[in-house]
Amino acid sequence: MRKLINDPANFVDEMLQGLYAAHPEKLKYVNDDLRCVVSAKTKKGKVGLATGGGSGHLPLFLGYVGEGMLDGCSVGGVFQSPSANQMLEVTKAIDSGAGVLYIYGNYGGDVMNFDMAAEMADLEGIRVEQVVAGEDVASAPKGKEDKRRGVAGIFYVYKIAGAYADEMASLDEVKRVAEKVCANVRTMGVALSPCTIPEVGKPSFVIKEGEMEIGMGIHGEPGIRKSELKPADSVVDEMLQPILEDLPFEKGDEVSVLINGLGATPREELYVLYRRVNQILKEKNIKIFHPYIGEFATSMEMAGASITLLRLDDELKRLLAKPANTPFFVQEQLEVR
Amino acid sequence: MRKLINDPANFVDEMLQGLYAAHPEKLKYVNDDLRCVVSAKTKKGKVGLATGGGSGHLPLFLGYVGEGMLDGCSVGGVFQSPSANQMLEVTKAIDSGAGVLYIYGNYGGDVMNFDMAAEMADLEGIRVEQVVAGEDVASAPKGKEDKRRGVAGIFYVYKIAGAYADEMASLDEVKRVAEKVCANVRTMGVALSPCTIPEVGKPSFVIKEGEMEIGMGIHGEPGIRKSELKPADSVVDEMLQPILEDLPFEKGDEVSVLINGLGATPREELYVLYRRVNQILKEKNIKIFHPYIGEFATSMEMAGASITLLRLDDELKRLLAKPANTPFFVQEQLEVR
Repeated sequence: MRKLINDPANFVDEMLQGLYAAHPEKLKYVNDDLRCVVSAKTKKGKVGLATGGGSGHLPLFLGYVGEGMLDGCSVGGVFQSPSANQMLEVTKAIDSGAGVLYIYGNYGGDVMNFDMAAEMADLEGIRVEQVVAGEDVASAPKGKEDKRRGVAGIFYVYKIAGAYADEMASLDEVKRVAEKVCANVRTMGVALSPCTIPEVGKPSFVIKEGEMEIGMGIHGEPGIRKSELKPADSVVDEMLQPILEDLPFEKGDEVSVLINGLGATPREELYVLYRRVNQILKEKNIKIFHPYIGEFATSMEMAGASITLLRLDDELKRLLAKPANTPFFVQEQLEVR
Repeated sequence: MRKLINDPANFVDEMLQGLYAAHPEKLKYVNDDLRCVVSAKTKKGKVGLATGGGSGHLPLFLGYVGEGMLDGCSVGGVFQSPSANQMLEVTKAIDSGAGVLYIYGNYGGDVMNFDMAAEMADLEGIRVEQVVAGEDVASAPKGKEDKRRGVAGIFYVYKIAGAYADEMASLDEVKRVAEKVCANVRTMGVALSPCTIPEVGKPSFVIKEGEMEIGMGIHGEPGIRKSELKPADSVVDEMLQPILEDLPFEKGDEVSVLINGLGATPREELYVLYRRVNQILKEKNIKIFHPYIGEFATSMEMAGASITLLRLDDELKRLLAKPANTPFFVQEQLEVR
């Protein structure tokens, strides 16, 4: 392993200790449990937004807790779901009477635990609704959208639902807009190297130098095609076509583009990918409103990237443009034209 | 190579094409040369701030061009200096009568070319002053500070000089404050893996898995010690002690801390490092004003990190806290206590 860690068993909790030490004005934990993260800034009467998921994906998931985005996050071990009880504690901490919306990725353990947490919250008299994000077109074919894994596209659900909740929209309304984002977002990834779970100590799958796997998930879930590593423009073409066909995204549409680095891929390369995405969308008369380029959902030190497109309408665009401020994501108000 | 690129010869220019396509409202280029980057938002009568340097270090150098920071940047090939002529063109574009300050890292090629550009600018009637940043304590001993390499600490010079220039301070004043930052900032790095220059195609040096090199530079310049990879806390101890001794940083000081990822090291690990830095500084009664944790100066896909400490006084703290907005760095006004 090439990792700057201490005892692998303490990795997640030491990371969290560093996090709270670094951002005491923004994040705190509840129930004496480092893994129950909530925003230090609360807004009375607002719908609470919670997420949760395994560690190893920063800024996912906890990195989006903060002003204009989420109110809380339960944190699991590396690539492991947090417990239902941790989810419940976060729920109780962030509910201020308007109810709580769970927004999380479509993974078995998370779905099971969030379902259980929602039932327990109900018994405590807290109204909870759920939105399960899954937009990886490589993970299940069209028509089976409910089987798809959630990857970087969940950033858009957090951002837009967060902005709407911040405007004091009701739980039903925030859920409606979160579901609209899910219905309009699509992602495809490519991996160039594996990653290593600290407690395992060696990569759990192999990608040789000079190879790539199109469609691989952020936990190393198998993709749709292994091949020799091709030039960046060809890789983009292979990734973008199934995204465009799936929704489909069409002439006249307006989209936001997210080029996400999986961990070890330099920002320079993400801009090379964006160059090609921009070319193709221009050719197709699809307008780009605002691109995000950087690391938004990682897989520790995995090399690779994902491309996400979100089809916008006036409502989504207005909410996407609003400011946000978390320890991992700061956005000023964007100009909407 | 595990790189998402096309022809290596086009890497830098294609990255720049992606950059201008992504951020047309923030960045543009002058003299029909993609490598002459200037801010799209200009402020009349302000001192112009320019930097420059090789590619492969994003967000360094061009990523700090924008509101509250720099006005322009000349861009070299991977790990290569831009030309004096490119520096001159940027200088001409950003001078609005108040003169231009060059802020760049202490590397032979950059020093030579910026010197030449300053002379050429003088012939064109533009007053230019220079501040050369060099704070890597591994690169030269105390007493030979002028031989030190500039690494991630230059972020603080950009941030603070940028905020001051934005307040319409004079060239002499901005230079004074930039020099004050240089005098009060110290860095040490550690590398866990090499990186590959695209046009070379293989790593130019070797760090085996399970090894580390303390003090290595961001172009792979030799460090001060090679050893087996130790636990993160020990690595921090080895890096922080020479930083603290060098200035020295002492009881009662107030500092900003920058934990910088070199490229392939996940954000989670940077927080594990920060946890230990925070512990040590607390023990020593050194107060932390505001930590920055992320990728600020990289070496493409190199695994590793650097730790930077900046000793603050009221002036530096006030300017550090001011907002900034570039495609790679957004900060809202920080609360100053």
